Amino acid sequence: MSFVLNGWYQAAWSDEVGRALLQRWICGQPVCLYRTRDGAPVALADRCPHRKYPLSLGRLDGDIIECNYHGYRIDAAGSCVGVAEQSEQPRAAVHRYPLVERDSVLWLWPGDPAQADPDLIPDLRWISDPDWTHVRGLVPLGARQELLVENLLDLSHETFLHPTTIGNAAVAGTPIEVSGEGTTVRFSRRMLGITPPPFYVKSMGLTAPADRWQDGEFYAPGVFLLHIRLAPAGTQEPEGYHMEVFHGMTPATQSECHDFWALGRDYLTGDAGLSRFQQEQQLAVMAEDVAALEVQEAMYATGGATMPESSIKGDVAALRSRRVMRRMLAAEQSAS
Amino acid sequence: MSFVLNGWYQAAWSDEVGRALLQRWICGQPVCLYRTRDGAPVALADRCPHRKYPLSLGRLDGDIIECNYHGYRIDAAGSCVGVAEQSEQPRAAVHRYPLVERDSVLWLWPGDPAQADPDLIPDLRWISDPDWTHVRGLVPLGARQELLVENLLDLSHETFLHPTTIGNAAVAGTPIEVSGEGTTVRFSRRMLGITPPPFYVKSMGLTAPADRWQDGEFYAPGVFLLHIRLAPAGTQEPEGYHMEVFHGMTPATQSECHDFWALGRDYLTGDAGLSRFQQEQQLAVMAEDVAALEVQEAMYATGGATMPESSIKGDVAALRSRRVMRRMLAAEQSAS
Amino acid sequence: MSFVLNGWYQAAWSDEVGRALLQRWICGQPVCLYRTRDGAPVALADRCPHRKYPLSLGRLDGDIIECNYHGYRIDAAGSCVGVAEQSEQPRAAVHRYPLVERDSVLWLWPGDPAQADPDLIPDLRWISDPDWTHVRGLVPLGARQELLVENLLDLSHETFLHPTTIGNAAVAGTPIEVSGEGTTVRFSRRMLGITPPPFYVKSMGLTAPADRWQDGEFYAPGVFLLHIRLAPAGTQEPEGYHMEVFHGMTPATQSECHDFWALGRDYLTGDAGLSRFQQEQQLAVMAEDVAALEVQEAMYATGGATMPESSIKGDVAALRSRRVMRRMLAAEQSAS
Repeated sequence: MSFVLNGWYQAAWSDEVGRALLQRWICGQPVCLYRTRDGAPVALADRCPHRKYPLSLGRLDGDIIECNYHGYRIDAAGSCVGVAEQSEQPRAAVHRYPLVERDSVLWLWPGDPAQADPDLIPDLRWISDPDWTHVRGLVPLGARQELLVENLLDLSHETFLHPTTIGNAAVAGTPIEVSGEGTTVRFSRRMLGITPPPFYVKSMGLTAPADRWQDGEFYAPGVFLLHIRLAPAGTQEPEGYHMEVFHGMTPATQSECHDFWALGRDYLTGDAGLSRFQQEQQLAVMAEDVAALEVQEAMYATGGATMPESSIKGDVAALRSRRVMRRMLAAEQSAS
Repeated sequence: MSFVLNGWYQAAWSDEVGRALLQRWICGQPVCLYRTRDGAPVALADRCPHRKYPLSLGRLDGDIIECNYHGYRIDAAGSCVGVAEQSEQPRAAVHRYPLVERDSVLWLWPGDPAQADPDLIPDLRWISDPDWTHVRGLVPLGARQELLVENLLDLSHETFLHPTTIGNAAVAGTPIEVSGEGTTVRFSRRMLGITPPPFYVKSMGLTAPADRWQDGEFYAPGVFLLHIRLAPAGTQEPEGYHMEVFHGMTPATQSECHDFWALGRDYLTGDAGLSRFQQEQQLAVMAEDVAALEVQEAMYATGGATMPESSIKGDVAALRSRRVMRRMLAAEQSAS
Repeated sequence: MSFVLNGWYQAAWSDEVGRALLQRWICGQPVCLYRTRDGAPVALADRCPHRKYPLSLGRLDGDIIECNYHGYRIDAAGSCVGVAEQSEQPRAAVHRYPLVERDSVLWLWPGDPAQADPDLIPDLRWISDPDWTHVRGLVPLGARQELLVENLLDLSHETFLHPTTIGNAAVAGTPIEVSGEGTTVRFSRRMLGITPPPFYVKSMGLTAPADRWQDGEFYAPGVFLLHIRLAPAGTQEPEGYHMEVFHGMTPATQSECHDFWALGRDYLTGDAGLSRFQQEQQLAVMAEDVAALEVQEAMYATGGATMPESSIKGDVAALRSRRVMRRMLAAEQSAS
């Protein structure tokens, strides 16, 4: 298995993790998530150092996990601090992953802890911004993470996969500008004087002609952000409707991925009915993506992954992400 | 994966393919089948040259398939003729398979198109002959194609697997004559003065003593024909009842196979009730074969395929088919 | 696949095998079990020498199995004695496994028949002893056999997995003595003056303080015996309640195992209600073990099997069993 490990991946939404032990697979390994009594989140390798039984099936005794198979006791640092009912204290430990909680996200660093710099976490402050509201969730995807990354970096697919919600001819018909630096890839699509797709008509009451912006960012290895603006054609910034789309794309296994998502807006923030509508629409859109990506995964797994492929200008951002990921992977493999 | 690719395999029955896109796996690859507006059948490799999404999930615009993921447009020759909504026309193509429609069968050649000689297609003219009638269908089989070929080339199994329909002691008890040339294997079993099995008693009103002929032909790599004659013992040809059995045996994957079948007769051709009876009986027989072959596949897959085996005279046709197939496979592999 | 083959494994309970053919997978191979007309049990490799179809799907003609695919006839020695309806008698045979019936157990030797010494079969005479009674069964386990062996050789897990039945703090809290010789591993845990766990309270009406003995034996490769004694604290042998626990641990495949079990007692032997209670309790305990071991199997299969592990004094018996099994395996592999 090969994953880019030196990077922040979303492990969970903040409110998924509490005093119950939660198992989640990340980059091919089981991780046990919980909070200590003072609320601090903890992520431990989820195999008891004794006989590999999941710690997440154990019980919390204060901040210590007691393994439910033979009683190994593991503290929040991952150290074995004894074995229940026995006098021995084996020198044993499980890996404690670097974990940072910010903007309702629990960020986990699967790789070298010495490199786990919290300053590398992408900015999601709109999730916590009182002038914004958002809906969010987690969708399981039966496809390799790469396919989700490339799906989001080529939004021309909205025209074909999502014609009843967020796509229309203007998306595929408008070229993107691509840039980036380091492990970041950026694209920008400015659709000016266009007919807005159904989602925005219903969500904002917009009519044609309108301007629609899509400014996307991939922060390798696992984060996608999309800055959206919609407004009557010609409206000057900062007027208009702004939305933010977030995807925390965390590989579970080589062919499965967690798709954490959030959709924020800066308008009608108190309108619960609109939030419900946006949640429903977003889930409908993602269901279309999941269906397509799982089919694509099957096409890749049966040989397609290594076949020659054709690319066009619209693929520049996705191809750039692929080079970035391969470079990161190669660097990690040569370092180890 | 290893399949004999230079040969005609049945891809579909004619009436399965129309203006809807159909995916079918053949020799380990997905194939997209459809007809152009003028009715010509087309078989294309079913992975978009862009990102391998199945073309068969796209939509037909005239005779052009538009991929439903990013809008690549592929014509009936397999060439990319543009990308929807975009100004680019990438130089890209998918393989168009040689495909011939004859006698209600769509014949596909998975291998080298230069060798795809329609004269090699076995003669099934009885399917189109107005003096004949037939029933037909497609049965999915969860076993490697080789097991189906050898099942049909050793019909002594009718005695044991199909005792309530087409088998009785006379089948296993009567030796076969085997011959052949090139990639064809032939066998002949002449059961004379025997008690006919239940299917023929009910189907023809035959009583003992009767003559039953089984003249089988395997046209490697994927076609089996059986010429059947039943008549009161001693009746001279061409008097008596004649039936034709066809199996188009098309590998889907290494362990799955399409079993296209047809059963024709030259008597009581207008009797719809008899046709229904024969269809039901044939499906019952094939269900017994499917159950047996899927068990056999499991026995092979768990080591049995490479164990020493015992053979008897009744296996001569099947063993000959195996040699033919291995020779064809070796020739293809040395050529590539 | 690698299994220790030179050893007696339980193939079935005596009453599972009769005049119906039974397929059971043992050490990665299908075995066909039945009894001849005189009641003698037979175990044959369950692939017809002809085309590997399971003999167990055939029919018994006297003591001869007739294969239901093409009529090969195999006698109780495994020899082909003809082919139904045909004049040929091919020289073919299947392996007949050494098989011994004793104490309601059918013992099978998967390895070299020359080494199959019945004197190596562990003593289970309490199963046949009229002064004892027992309950028994077979539980399928989706985990490698090694995990079951080690589960039983470290009963400290009763404290954590089985707290409502047979476990309490005294089990994990009491050290074991370990010994052994050859391919036998023994451990002894003497819990003196303890509170008995719920199962024994209900089963025997015991109250604290009580003495509880656990004297376990692993007869590699596939048998575990536990000699249990419970009595009011300080009671001298042979007074008190005695129980025997047996597990016939027979690998089916690399990741599946048959867990034949029996639970005997020398008290209230005529109490059918107590037998029912003990059967229910034992099945409840085993369901907890199955759930845990199948999770552990998943943890092993996803990389855990080769990770470093921590061990404590309580693992000495299990670690010893592991060394014994590896030594046996190495000896078999160097001999072949």
